[in-house]
Amino acid sequence: MADDRKEGEKVYGEEAIIQRYLAPLAAGFPGAFGLQDDCALISPPPGTELVLKTDPVAEGVHFVAGDAPEDIAWKALAVNVSDLAAKGAQPIAYLMALSFPEAPAAAWLSRFAEGLQEAQKCFGCHLAGGDTDRRPGPLTVTITVIGSVEQGRMVPRGAARAGDALFVSGTLGDAALGLLQHNDEARAQSWALTLAEAEHLRIRYARPQPRLALAGALRQHAHAAMDLSDGLAKDLGRLCAASGCAARVRFATIPLSEAAAKALAADPALTERIVAGGDDYEILAAVPADKARAFVADAAAAGVPVAEIGRVKAGSGVTIDGADGLPMSLSRTGWDHF
Amino acid sequence: MADDRKEGEKVYGEEAIIQRYLAPLAAGFPGAFGLQDDCALISPPPGTELVLKTDPVAEGVHFVAGDAPEDIAWKALAVNVSDLAAKGAQPIAYLMALSFPEAPAAAWLSRFAEGLQEAQKCFGCHLAGGDTDRRPGPLTVTITVIGSVEQGRMVPRGAARAGDALFVSGTLGDAALGLLQHNDEARAQSWALTLAEAEHLRIRYARPQPRLALAGALRQHAHAAMDLSDGLAKDLGRLCAASGCAARVRFATIPLSEAAAKALAADPALTERIVAGGDDYEILAAVPADKARAFVADAAAAGVPVAEIGRVKAGSGVTIDGADGLPMSLSRTGWDHF
Repeated sequence: MADDRKEGEKVYGEEAIIQRYLAPLAAGFPGAFGLQDDCALISPPPGTELVLKTDPVAEGVHFVAGDAPEDIAWKALAVNVSDLAAKGAQPIAYLMALSFPEAPAAAWLSRFAEGLQEAQKCFGCHLAGGDTDRRPGPLTVTITVIGSVEQGRMVPRGAARAGDALFVSGTLGDAALGLLQHNDEARAQSWALTLAEAEHLRIRYARPQPRLALAGALRQHAHAAMDLSDGLAKDLGRLCAASGCAARVRFATIPLSEAAAKALAADPALTERIVAGGDDYEILAAVPADKARAFVADAAAAGVPVAEIGRVKAGSGVTIDGADGLPMSLSRTGWDHF
Repeated sequence: MADDRKEGEKVYGEEAIIQRYLAPLAAGFPGAFGLQDDCALISPPPGTELVLKTDPVAEGVHFVAGDAPEDIAWKALAVNVSDLAAKGAQPIAYLMALSFPEAPAAAWLSRFAEGLQEAQKCFGCHLAGGDTDRRPGPLTVTITVIGSVEQGRMVPRGAARAGDALFVSGTLGDAALGLLQHNDEARAQSWALTLAEAEHLRIRYARPQPRLALAGALRQHAHAAMDLSDGLAKDLGRLCAASGCAARVRFATIPLSEAAAKALAADPALTERIVAGGDDYEILAAVPADKARAFVADAAAAGVPVAEIGRVKAGSGVTIDGADGLPMSLSRTGWDHF
């Protein structure tokens, strides 16, 4: 795929990029001051606290040069909003630090801004400020998202308790298989997916959907929650470590899409990829057993399927029982940026 | 100077870096959750709004590989806090996205964390969250700082009016001359500075001091303000553009340190460097003429010297009258990251 970022008319100058492409993303948010001020101003709704998250995406790590600019933009915002959803928070605004290795092409910028526009409409937030510069190194998009949550109601990571039921939203592994399909077409052909199934995996990688609709049910019922970005195995390990407990999960209960189930049937070694591949952007939640039924009902009412995959236990460490009933031995437990 | 970042025992793994070096910076801030959660939680003091700013610093652009890790850390936080000061806000917390091209050395990390510890104590804020990763490209420190300001009292950039007096805090040009001195020792020798004077310029570049003490006087008296990061000429142009007005400044009234005055006497071509060199991290404020005296008094009471350098006018554009009384023609108007 051509690298559109370098092709066609270039846009030189920070002010030109800000005023032509970014200021429209700030329209309608008074505290952005049309991106003409140094700072953004956010007035939290009365009775709320602010939840903040920053997570950069970089070319060569989180996306590749040929990726559609709309998708890069969407993903840069979505991965941050996904964290807010897991905390039971609603996004308000975001700051964005953009770093280009060379002057970007007008067409690329225009599509990048379109992707952000689409994402922020979908997630209910606005660009409120940021920084644009040019420096050597990969194209980097560092978004800081700011959300609000009713005072004292943020869902933490570290408050799971032994006996809690473990839930995940949606289906796991799709994005990891989507990336594998992109990088290893030969292997993906052995899965014999239909075009629609292959497209499903692709879109799950390119366009993660933060589970904002689940925020209410999480605030209402969950002891602890986090979004899954580095794979279930690793992220569940983090939730357990933060909560001072252990977990046991059955692979057979992990919800899979039809596409993922078909790929797995053709290639059972994908088990590991599904639990450790990352990029799911689904929610992992620890819900007290006596609230599990209500959680499932409220999630369903919000349009988000959730599935119980195991239990929180006393102790430490994560066990995933494989399809054969034996604990899986994972050669890598998940994505580590180091 | 040796590149300490690559020397000695290395620290591998995101969790090790976070728990050993960064978590202590979050101690005492409950909303940081010991850096064990995905997100940070900030409870704005009642009756306040939040002011946010993000500004990355990167190796090769804002600092060089041999720079002291303490200084890099200090600067990364200070350049963001400086923006808050100009808005009349007080820092609460910051998020930090750290990106390393290779596993950093333990000694480097330890000194980097010390610099942050020193800076955050001085500025009154805590690390509340962030992200650490490894990827190709320069070492990058992207800080997002969050401050609070009494509701409706943020000092904007875009509300200067014709007739306002223009003030700057401290002295201008020191940091730009400090950088020049570092990069061009031969030229700096012609300035015949004492060791103390040379050190003054160096420290002004390495350790910018955000003018937080001026926040109250700005809220009380200023129509508009911003911090000077890209040079007076360019930043004043931005303040005027945002306010829909013009400005006229006399170079002779720009406050200079003894070191800068001596360098300028020896090398009159430094005039341009002083108004366009950047990295001042002083405050530029537009104050209504009838409040100018009170502003100076309140600033002095807060321990911050301010000097009137010109006036806001009707129209557009910035004129700086040079030492010879003629408008200066600037070959570059200031630092542009593009």
